[in-house]
Amino acid sequence: MGDEAVRAPEVEILAAGHVRIQLVIAYDGAAYAGWQRQPEDLSVQQRVEEALARLFPGKPTVSGSSRTDTGVHAAGLCAHVDVPREQFRMPGRKLVLALNAWLPEDIRVLSARRVPAQFHARFSAQGKEYRYRVWNHPAHHPLWRGQSWHVPRTLDLAAMRRAARLFEGRHDFLAFSASPGYVRNHTVRTVTRCAILRSGPQLTIVIRADGFLYKMCRGIVGTLVQVGLGRFPPEVIPDLLSARDRRMSGMTAPAQGLVLWKVFYLKAGQHLAHPAQRPIAASQPDEHRPG
Amino acid sequence: MGDEAVRAPEVEILAAGHVRIQLVIAYDGAAYAGWQRQPEDLSVQQRVEEALARLFPGKPTVSGSSRTDTGVHAAGLCAHVDVPREQFRMPGRKLVLALNAWLPEDIRVLSARRVPAQFHARFSAQGKEYRYRVWNHPAHHPLWRGQSWHVPRTLDLAAMRRAARLFEGRHDFLAFSASPGYVRNHTVRTVTRCAILRSGPQLTIVIRADGFLYKMCRGIVGTLVQVGLGRFPPEVIPDLLSARDRRMSGMTAPAQGLVLWKVFYLKAGQHLAHPAQRPIAASQPDEHRPG
Repeated sequence: MGDEAVRAPEVEILAAGHVRIQLVIAYDGAAYAGWQRQPEDLSVQQRVEEALARLFPGKPTVSGSSRTDTGVHAAGLCAHVDVPREQFRMPGRKLVLALNAWLPEDIRVLSARRVPAQFHARFSAQGKEYRYRVWNHPAHHPLWRGQSWHVPRTLDLAAMRRAARLFEGRHDFLAFSASPGYVRNHTVRTVTRCAILRSGPQLTIVIRADGFLYKMCRGIVGTLVQVGLGRFPPEVIPDLLSARDRRMSGMTAPAQGLVLWKVFYLKAGQHLAHPAQRPIAASQPDEHRPG
Repeated sequence: MGDEAVRAPEVEILAAGHVRIQLVIAYDGAAYAGWQRQPEDLSVQQRVEEALARLFPGKPTVSGSSRTDTGVHAAGLCAHVDVPREQFRMPGRKLVLALNAWLPEDIRVLSARRVPAQFHARFSAQGKEYRYRVWNHPAHHPLWRGQSWHVPRTLDLAAMRRAARLFEGRHDFLAFSASPGYVRNHTVRTVTRCAILRSGPQLTIVIRADGFLYKMCRGIVGTLVQVGLGRFPPEVIPDLLSARDRRMSGMTAPAQGLVLWKVFYLKAGQHLAHPAQRPIAASQPDEHRPG
């Protein structure tokens, strides 16, 4: 990961006679080793590429906005794929139906639309929102068990909310990530929202940032839950951040509670010319397998 | 069902030396032939009784507030069970843990508490709330696919809301139920709330009533969706109600979108002395396998 962090982002120039399509994809991550293609294990990317290969010639390759980890879900991952212009005669709505006909039920393409050649699902992303569900009740809820973390002991929500606010802002998140390979000073991210919504025993932790390190969301959530259990006071968060030591912060929350909720892009026409020309991408490459 | 509708409710007197326990139970209905014990198929009741038999002598029998249909879920079904006083030394919180240790993951006891001897999960119920989820988007959402009805064509929400309001009030719901066996004039129920909440493509139809006929919720939801698709105008609902003919109203919505959300009881001390003395129970027996 360290190598990738300093390597220039790979160039993906749209080939002549092709059009670039943006796909918004949702999936239940339970059965998959994450988004990214793996040599051995089944990935969401592989399934999407197999469906595309039913409709378009060659072996279309999709580029995803994020590499979600094994078991993490998505409500709105973004991806792009280039297809021959003459093959792409259908409106986005029809492409959605055609792709979903070839996809398993736990993966759905929610929308498809043509985007400018400069659009890149990963490098054009301005920010992302993850949501993490905690079920805080002595008994887990059977209907949410595949999409939440069961924390039976009562959590101190006020303390968790104080801690959540301390994650907001521009910080070095190395202490809340699980990868040893990051290059120094490439682990700074800006969290624009870290909030906890509550509906009865269900807590939804909303984390929005310009980018996420590997397992950063789950590191933040694990620490917030430790705060809720009284193991850390909220005021310790700035110290944990500045210590930049994973061993000092809280546990990593389990994968099944996490959903990649949404990816944010500039409005049409605001895309930068090329990923390598985008300063933020060059100095702070995007996350690898966040969550 | 017709027989049951005129038969006096069975008497369940608390035996000497016993205490009555109220259980609130949630389950994912996908794997079960509903709540009620069946000779052949696996029911939630059977699983709960098996767990109780691990903790208490004899073969404890639970009485449920409702018979949910095959595949219908529950977030808060109520049940009661009588256990020997000398065996019941643990607080409710411990009983919850002990029962859940013997239950499969798709059934959870959420709470357990001692209730007066007059309490009856079914006959003491003053009302119930069901919630039905519709996913209204061209592609079904993978994370809600086990708990919602996928309606791909755009629904006219305003028309559905006008129709929903027309279900509120005291009506004969025979036309929205699926059982042929109801006795004339025993099919009147009072719907106190029929509302549609929206969150993006997800519609949640909330139906609260003093009681429900067999498949009444799913009949109402099926009809609301037909209204949303433009097949009926909302104004036809009163005519459908007064026609009392199932063939005229809309389809029955599929089971997996329905959740028995909550059962309402009088506050402690307000329980009526005996089910048979409760006029509403004698003249309008509660539903059979609602949903």
